[in-house]
Amino acid sequence: MTSRENRGRLLISCPDRIGIVGAIGQFLASCGANIAESAQHSTAPWGGDFFMRVEFELEDLPNREEALCRDFAKLAEEYQMRWRYHPARKKKRMAIFVSRELHCLQELLWEWQDGLLDADLKMVISNHEDARPLVESLGIPYYYIPVTPENKPEAEAQALALMDGQIDVIVLARYMQILSPSFLEHYPQRIINIHHSFLPAFIGRNPYQRAYQRGVKLIGATAHYVTEELDEGPIIEQDVMRVDHRFTALDLRIAGRQVERAVLSRAVKWHLEDKVIVHGNKTIVFA
Amino acid sequence: MTSRENRGRLLISCPDRIGIVGAIGQFLASCGANIAESAQHSTAPWGGDFFMRVEFELEDLPNREEALCRDFAKLAEEYQMRWRYHPARKKKRMAIFVSRELHCLQELLWEWQDGLLDADLKMVISNHEDARPLVESLGIPYYYIPVTPENKPEAEAQALALMDGQIDVIVLARYMQILSPSFLEHYPQRIINIHHSFLPAFIGRNPYQRAYQRGVKLIGATAHYVTEELDEGPIIEQDVMRVDHRFTALDLRIAGRQVERAVLSRAVKWHLEDKVIVHGNKTIVFA
Amino acid sequence: MTSRENRGRLLISCPDRIGIVGAIGQFLASCGANIAESAQHSTAPWGGDFFMRVEFELEDLPNREEALCRDFAKLAEEYQMRWRYHPARKKKRMAIFVSRELHCLQELLWEWQDGLLDADLKMVISNHEDARPLVESLGIPYYYIPVTPENKPEAEAQALALMDGQIDVIVLARYMQILSPSFLEHYPQRIINIHHSFLPAFIGRNPYQRAYQRGVKLIGATAHYVTEELDEGPIIEQDVMRVDHRFTALDLRIAGRQVERAVLSRAVKWHLEDKVIVHGNKTIVFA
Amino acid sequence: MTSRENRGRLLISCPDRIGIVGAIGQFLASCGANIAESAQHSTAPWGGDFFMRVEFELEDLPNREEALCRDFAKLAEEYQMRWRYHPARKKKRMAIFVSRELHCLQELLWEWQDGLLDADLKMVISNHEDARPLVESLGIPYYYIPVTPENKPEAEAQALALMDGQIDVIVLARYMQILSPSFLEHYPQRIINIHHSFLPAFIGRNPYQRAYQRGVKLIGATAHYVTEELDEGPIIEQDVMRVDHRFTALDLRIAGRQVERAVLSRAVKWHLEDKVIVHGNKTIVFA
Repeated sequence: MTSRENRGRLLISCPDRIGIVGAIGQFLASCGANIAESAQHSTAPWGGDFFMRVEFELEDLPNREEALCRDFAKLAEEYQMRWRYHPARKKKRMAIFVSRELHCLQELLWEWQDGLLDADLKMVISNHEDARPLVESLGIPYYYIPVTPENKPEAEAQALALMDGQIDVIVLARYMQILSPSFLEHYPQRIINIHHSFLPAFIGRNPYQRAYQRGVKLIGATAHYVTEELDEGPIIEQDVMRVDHRFTALDLRIAGRQVERAVLSRAVKWHLEDKVIVHGNKTIVFA
Repeated sequence: MTSRENRGRLLISCPDRIGIVGAIGQFLASCGANIAESAQHSTAPWGGDFFMRVEFELEDLPNREEALCRDFAKLAEEYQMRWRYHPARKKKRMAIFVSRELHCLQELLWEWQDGLLDADLKMVISNHEDARPLVESLGIPYYYIPVTPENKPEAEAQALALMDGQIDVIVLARYMQILSPSFLEHYPQRIINIHHSFLPAFIGRNPYQRAYQRGVKLIGATAHYVTEELDEGPIIEQDVMRVDHRFTALDLRIAGRQVERAVLSRAVKWHLEDKVIVHGNKTIVFA
Repeated sequence: MTSRENRGRLLISCPDRIGIVGAIGQFLASCGANIAESAQHSTAPWGGDFFMRVEFELEDLPNREEALCRDFAKLAEEYQMRWRYHPARKKKRMAIFVSRELHCLQELLWEWQDGLLDADLKMVISNHEDARPLVESLGIPYYYIPVTPENKPEAEAQALALMDGQIDVIVLARYMQILSPSFLEHYPQRIINIHHSFLPAFIGRNPYQRAYQRGVKLIGATAHYVTEELDEGPIIEQDVMRVDHRFTALDLRIAGRQVERAVLSRAVKWHLEDKVIVHGNKTIVFA
Repeated sequence: MTSRENRGRLLISCPDRIGIVGAIGQFLASCGANIAESAQHSTAPWGGDFFMRVEFELEDLPNREEALCRDFAKLAEEYQMRWRYHPARKKKRMAIFVSRELHCLQELLWEWQDGLLDADLKMVISNHEDARPLVESLGIPYYYIPVTPENKPEAEAQALALMDGQIDVIVLARYMQILSPSFLEHYPQRIINIHHSFLPAFIGRNPYQRAYQRGVKLIGATAHYVTEELDEGPIIEQDVMRVDHRFTALDLRIAGRQVERAVLSRAVKWHLEDKVIVHGNKTIVFA
């Protein structure tokens, strides 16, 4: 069995207090687990919130994780922890939504093929046919679900039905439709969007056109979890690139693709590796 | 006489048409001037606006520039040019306004001492006394003009009187007072401000606090010419730096100083070297 | 006819002297050409070398460029110019060489498909079969030419024969064979290589392994023209990314792909758009 | 008593094995200490080396730290730990060495004045007089020790005598003399140098001149601990900035100051906050 089989991850949030790190460390040691990576964050030295990500190795983990979780639940109760356990061997099942701009999809597919995205890529859903050849050439199911103002509820229902029980995380790789609150409810903190600006600048439509009009000297992109408020969800990652007066609005749009795909790709990777904890409207990223 | 004595700069804007570069080049050659640097920009291949910056060397320039300008005016008329001539030997006379945060002032003073800022630094004006020792230790006049909601018109009048006929450019190096439209009218496109965010994100007060609340992953700074609309003037330069969940609002403020001083310093340098042309609410920077 | 049909580029090098810009500008104006972009560089205000790139629009260029070049040759003689003329409508014919790491090839193929690489991609040549499916799926001819220490001269002869008269520029997109001087002679300043380090650090083999051993905090990549001396040719572009103590040598290699493909892609784009002039062992890049 | 008084740091290295984190955490909890920050690194999941930095809060720490260390020593023995304890309240005593280029010194002084450098700045030593006014204006002792090939041993002896028992860390802020092995022996892993290139490129003299000749597109700086082999010590931090063909060797030197001072300042800050562990010829930086 490879070491991947025996690797587990714990994500923990709780009120900060003395002894948490020791208790978790002792617990894992008492199970015979070795901590391979560990990161923590406290919002304040006393009286704050505590967050931790631990990645550990434990022999014969698949057969022992049920007991481990049962035992950890007792500790968790004592410290009022919210926690999640993820075995590294179970890849998250991912759906990608895309419209007509394919660069972000392409980047994700490339990294996925290269083994750099730790996901089980189940399907690509699109309101256009543009991405079909690319996606099907890799043997990934492609679903064309056109969306109009009139059929939107039906279209969303169709997508939900396709994904039902199959999908752990949805990536909006330049999907140009706004999802309804009822859709979002099915995947809280599990839908990642790429917005083509440095949020909170240029929320909403046509950010490159507006960046052009404002005469900014950098353009950016933001990957965030989708919430009901447009472009207001917890930010996972952002980056920028330098531009100048020679760039037309179209040039900005083309150049910006480089930032968009890099930013989305990092955010998705971190999510898949359980490196992101949402805290209110922010994220803690143990990158 | 050093080569600096003989170096001149022309900044030109006009409707684009055939022959402009040739005409300017021929004109300078016919005067015996050698073009040392030249940069241009057209907003469109046909029918756009044309912008040019030429830096040239001409022997005995101080005695010949009057005639040169007179002759160039004829050419300029033919091509409907707006233009400015700046001899490199005449440093721009600069006033710096500052409040209590001194990092931007300090950076400008260092660069000025080092000969990297091509300015004649005439005075520092402040609504506080904090910067006095630093400024006076360098032999630069320091004027303390306190500002309250009540005395603001008088305070501005006092500053204007001190600068009257003495100052070519004003730098707001973290000056935390909003200047009135009537003040601004005296120095159109000649007041440079540093705003401590990546505009248009976080316009107005407390950008670091708001950046903290939004959970951004980069913080930034923007140097721009001041216009009547707060933080809406033409952007000269912007930059960002990476932050993460560990930064408190105070940490952001301290870290951001590095970006603020670098961005302001570059913008001021470019302005002093006549590298910035304002076009509508944008800038063309021939950096 | 599109504007692309009517766009021409002149790349010029000559001893600097008074009047060059004017003479070129007048010449183009007298032909009725409008300068769309122009950039120049002098190594010194007096007595240096002068370099210029001019991009112009001229109606009916395809029928007039022969005469234009004939006339320009006279001007060029007067000023001792070395010069090249490139009509924008003629895409450079490109061959890509690759071995087993496909990320740089993939990036180039994407950009080419997206219309961002202004090239006529004629063929991909490889000493392995790995890239065949990807390349052929795009309808691009793929030639497998295995290379061993014994057959190297024959292998190179075979590649040269395939390219004979067909190829303007060769891109080594992670091609792990050293080309012989006699091969290089056929394509002076027209073979672009990506080296997976920030040259001149880690010249030669296994740069990531050596970067790991040295404990650097940034890794980089360098695109350069290939010359007889390994990794010593004129540098076109370089970039870096941040790493830390957690990166194994393998992690560096994987992370470095992002920089390699970005750097190579920029360098190739600039070459294709005639934005690079080689001067001794350096480049002037009018990016 | 402020919280700073009660903050302690442990830096630990040992062979990796099960239970270390738990043991340390339990130990601190049993003392009543709350872990405020913690970072760790393992070179391999099994059989590697383990490194940890823990920052904790403990009431009445100054009176309890002796006992705490005594008790921790037992734990350390069990796990074969090399370890250091640093109370945050004890600032490291720092000497800065400088020659004639003052930008790095200036940056350090500015940050020190601002309270951003957690050091007790005891003295500045120089082989020139250039920095005296700046240093003495801040009330810091300045020692002028000229160095020639002949008097070097005496000069070093003089510096060692001045620092004897007074100094925890030496910063070479562009000090242009090579220190002898016997000098270095007094301050192992406690002398930080800034080298004005991206090491291992341009080891030794005149890096900017050589960068200019090579035609690089980025210049860099490297902060490292000084060892007997010139520019080969463990790297703490590096960074780069973009340059182009317009930069002369002098321009590179001037522009590079920005990178040098930023890189040195970060490295010094991390050292002062006990965030750097040297491991062989590399560093682990818990930044």
